[in-house]
Amino acid sequence: MSQKIAINLMCTSCGSEILPESGNYSCPKCKGILQVRYSRGAINKELISSHSSRSGVWKYFEMLPVESRENIVSLEEGNTPLIRTESLGAGYYVKDETRNPTGSFKDRPNTVGISKAIELGAKTIAIASSGNAAGSLSAYAAKAKLQCIVCVPEDTPDSKLKQIMVFGAKVAKVKGTYSDSFNLIRESCKRYGWHNLTSVCTANPYQVEGDKTAAYEIYERLNNPDWVLIPLGAGPLLVGIYRGFLELQEAGLIEKIPRLIGVQAEECAPIVRAFKNGDRNVLPWEGKPHTVAHSIADPLTGYSEDGTLTLEKIRESNGVAESVNDEEMMEAVWQLARGEGIFAEPAAASTLAAANKLKKNGIISNGDKVVMVVTGTGLKSQVVLDQLRPAPAIDPDPDQLVKIMK
Amino acid sequence: MSQKIAINLMCTSCGSEILPESGNYSCPKCKGILQVRYSRGAINKELISSHSSRSGVWKYFEMLPVESRENIVSLEEGNTPLIRTESLGAGYYVKDETRNPTGSFKDRPNTVGISKAIELGAKTIAIASSGNAAGSLSAYAAKAKLQCIVCVPEDTPDSKLKQIMVFGAKVAKVKGTYSDSFNLIRESCKRYGWHNLTSVCTANPYQVEGDKTAAYEIYERLNNPDWVLIPLGAGPLLVGIYRGFLELQEAGLIEKIPRLIGVQAEECAPIVRAFKNGDRNVLPWEGKPHTVAHSIADPLTGYSEDGTLTLEKIRESNGVAESVNDEEMMEAVWQLARGEGIFAEPAAASTLAAANKLKKNGIISNGDKVVMVVTGTGLKSQVVLDQLRPAPAIDPDPDQLVKIMK
Repeated sequence: MSQKIAINLMCTSCGSEILPESGNYSCPKCKGILQVRYSRGAINKELISSHSSRSGVWKYFEMLPVESRENIVSLEEGNTPLIRTESLGAGYYVKDETRNPTGSFKDRPNTVGISKAIELGAKTIAIASSGNAAGSLSAYAAKAKLQCIVCVPEDTPDSKLKQIMVFGAKVAKVKGTYSDSFNLIRESCKRYGWHNLTSVCTANPYQVEGDKTAAYEIYERLNNPDWVLIPLGAGPLLVGIYRGFLELQEAGLIEKIPRLIGVQAEECAPIVRAFKNGDRNVLPWEGKPHTVAHSIADPLTGYSEDGTLTLEKIRESNGVAESVNDEEMMEAVWQLARGEGIFAEPAAASTLAAANKLKKNGIISNGDKVVMVVTGTGLKSQVVLDQLRPAPAIDPDPDQLVKIMK
Repeated sequence: MSQKIAINLMCTSCGSEILPESGNYSCPKCKGILQVRYSRGAINKELISSHSSRSGVWKYFEMLPVESRENIVSLEEGNTPLIRTESLGAGYYVKDETRNPTGSFKDRPNTVGISKAIELGAKTIAIASSGNAAGSLSAYAAKAKLQCIVCVPEDTPDSKLKQIMVFGAKVAKVKGTYSDSFNLIRESCKRYGWHNLTSVCTANPYQVEGDKTAAYEIYERLNNPDWVLIPLGAGPLLVGIYRGFLELQEAGLIEKIPRLIGVQAEECAPIVRAFKNGDRNVLPWEGKPHTVAHSIADPLTGYSEDGTLTLEKIRESNGVAESVNDEEMMEAVWQLARGEGIFAEPAAASTLAAANKLKKNGIISNGDKVVMVVTGTGLKSQVVLDQLRPAPAIDPDPDQLVKIMK
């Protein structure tokens, strides 16, 4: 059995080294983003592929920042299918994150974040979320018997709110955009000593480590694709996937990191704007976004350094940032459902919408191996469900049945 | 690599042997239930545990009635978690079937049923369903590019209807109970040559073979539990799980078959009634059932022999049939959500409700290993979602946030 690898935290701004035991989630000196560092040589072929008796996120225990297995809170997240989707394009694959316990990829960061919070002695955890992350965290909090406090934007659809409430979290709808919820949770955690499990790098350095397991899984199934498309709010999933592939590269398991494509909604695209302008820093988005992709409509007001970190990883992978409009995302929802039997929410289908666009523009070439991360289920997406017309009612009569089939 | 095992069909009523190639889904001589038979010695330790590179239902390809891998239509169903649930009882486990691609166990029978239908040349498939089975089949039909025709009872909640429609199936709401939908599809398939993929044994002999893979998975994770609790409409899942364990016993892998507990809703419990009366045959349930467990509210009018087959397997396993009321099921929904972070629909939580009852009655003893099959997600359950009160709205102010937490 492999030994647990020693970890510490390093500030990505001022370079300070911080002990995890200190309980800090951001740099105590400069408020910068903390990154988990593992001792050298941590990852190797043995750790990545040999645990046939384990599966999912915790298969990679040695590469995750939790010291003791006793602290793990798991719903058997991860190990999601990588589905070949020829109807969408030759060489196209969907990494189907709708198959996680609560229906979105957020179960990956949350299983790691909550386990670490328990290791650090948390009694109350808190999160700002557009819906999926809180629906996930509240399930893990129920299992762990922790109090869970949630802030969501006031326009969060009931279909997402109710999943959060089912698991017993305390939920408030907060006036304003997602950023208002984010800043309220940050302020309240500081004031009341709650652990902040909002899944962006400025709020919590551990959760992005859960995100990186998606890269390990893609590697194990497909080795090394040319492109990986990822929906972006602030972008911790992209940062995590970048980090996972970087570790694989450093261990000599892959030659180069796949080119990462970050996808945003046209109505709220601060990272894409900075990418296309050639800016080094991402600036907050102005105004209140209106889009079918509310899961990724994050203006980054007050924590735009999360966007800047994401932009940096896109560029380091020689990648692309692209935006798509509501119509293109809804079209992609139907393509996934009716071509592949996969029901995604619009924000999750944004990766297919962007692949379609970049193929047309010649950025993605014929023959490229393309992985589209589909981040969340459509079962919680009111905007999709509302587009379907009611089914007709008939008597139990074959003649009537055959008529409605036309 | 193991060779494919030869199969044929045998009528459980008159004993006739039928070739699968004939395309019959029930006995052409006596209309009896057909059962798939494999050549002797089909199952063995090698087939059951050695395919570490495969997972899910099709890991057991050699034990399934599809001849050619080319005909397989899969969304990577099965391989669902078996979760230890100490908060519900010592030695208790949930077999979490909500983790299948469309959120219910129905993906197991449908992946087998549709693959076989394709092998038999189907162009149009049809199903009667209370919601979950059709939500599943329509996804597989989309992937396979087959026309899919669905009949559901008129009171099927929108939350289930819409999943079916997302995938593009043609849906009709049929006046009357589930049995009216069932009989309409049976009659229409006969008249128009559609393949009947309604997942009960009288309608289709192949799908129950998909159900049996749940038994293989329980065996692989837990060896041999004392009890397995299973929600019952007509009961093909129980018949399949019985068959899976029987095969394991015949192969010498387990000594005895676990005792199977079939669970129905008090408002519609034809199998439980017959079990408690000591009857050999199940009779149809009278009247229109009203229960929160609409997924299993099946009066069996016109095909009660499906219920009789299920009852027979319960008795052969030295098992029990028990009913639970709406209140007990709703209580179990909250226990699963708030104790374990698992969101089940009431029909799926019926197994926990029954375990609670049978523990109190002394049927389940302390120290018994108990598996509760949780068959479908609560995300599609209007009746649960409607019980949650709206979340309060606040300004982005920590004082307001901390107040609503009390």
